Amino acid sequence: MNYCSDCGATVSLKIPENDERMRFVCDTCGMIHYQNPKIVAGVLSVRGEQVLLCRRAIAPRYGLWTLPAGFMENGETTDQAAAREAHEEANATLRDLRLYTVISVPHVSHVHVIYRCELVSDDFAPGVESLETRLFHEHEIPWDELAFHTVRKTLECFFHDRKQGVFPVHNLAFTIALPT
Amino acid sequence: MNYCSDCGATVSLKIPENDERMRFVCDTCGMIHYQNPKIVAGVLSVRGEQVLLCRRAIAPRYGLWTLPAGFMENGETTDQAAAREAHEEANATLRDLRLYTVISVPHVSHVHVIYRCELVSDDFAPGVESLETRLFHEHEIPWDELAFHTVRKTLECFFHDRKQGVFPVHNLAFTIALPT
Repeated sequence: MNYCSDCGATVSLKIPENDERMRFVCDTCGMIHYQNPKIVAGVLSVRGEQVLLCRRAIAPRYGLWTLPAGFMENGETTDQAAAREAHEEANATLRDLRLYTVISVPHVSHVHVIYRCELVSDDFAPGVESLETRLFHEHEIPWDELAFHTVRKTLECFFHDRKQGVFPVHNLAFTIALPT
Repeated sequence: MNYCSDCGATVSLKIPENDERMRFVCDTCGMIHYQNPKIVAGVLSVRGEQVLLCRRAIAPRYGLWTLPAGFMENGETTDQAAAREAHEEANATLRDLRLYTVISVPHVSHVHVIYRCELVSDDFAPGVESLETRLFHEHEIPWDELAFHTVRKTLECFFHDRKQGVFPVHNLAFTIALPT
């Protein structure tokens, strides 16, 4: 961030009064430009014994497999965002969305919110952000070609929970040691 | 938003290529400035039979009662954000944080993420954003002086669940009809 989005003057990184964090503050009008984590909403959609994955047609992680998911938009609820992403990336029609994993990824300031749901029909197909959409049995999951840790963890939770027959909400975090 | 935070030129509201939503797009460098929902993280902290509320010393809803909560910061996990807010607003020390309510508030593009936890001691006190901090039994809750619907709903869930002895995660949304 170089310029104030309100008045167009330059900004500086400083700690505002009554604050403890560095913020971008306008050198002219004084507006404080807060930056906050983003929510990535998605679905683990199930058809019989199989789950739906999409192969990414976009960066990052082009060509790797993921759960349909993407950035939540203003004006949405989390489940609406998850269903929209499934529609955009896999033309998937869903029902019975239930909150399943809430995973913080603090080094990129994301929170992944994944719903478990039923995929209503076999009538799905890649959207513009997917190369391929496919149903996988547990033994077919391409574990070494998954796009994100949150996808792996959500799938691991699901196959574990399915054996137990209960699906609690999992609240997790991926913390990595950043280079100093 | 009037100016590009990257190059300082003017921005226009338009639908970018391969998009379906109006975005602020720089008239000069073309940067698309996405705007996304914010997470409000907080705690329902319990000490014996009582729960901790704070009376707000800031707008909006100055003077009304709330659960300690505030905007999640970049680089945090959701539970870290909730604990930080409890410390800032009530100097509260907590343990055993468990995800409890996840409530979308789409008309303001917020998602409230509230943890249920134990308040470790009676050694709490108002921070700069609180006029007062106090423990309440269920029959003492100032239902007509609560700051937010999400606070009311989380308290209702808690007192209901406590009677049952089980505390599932509640995923809800507050949708209101906006004036047209």
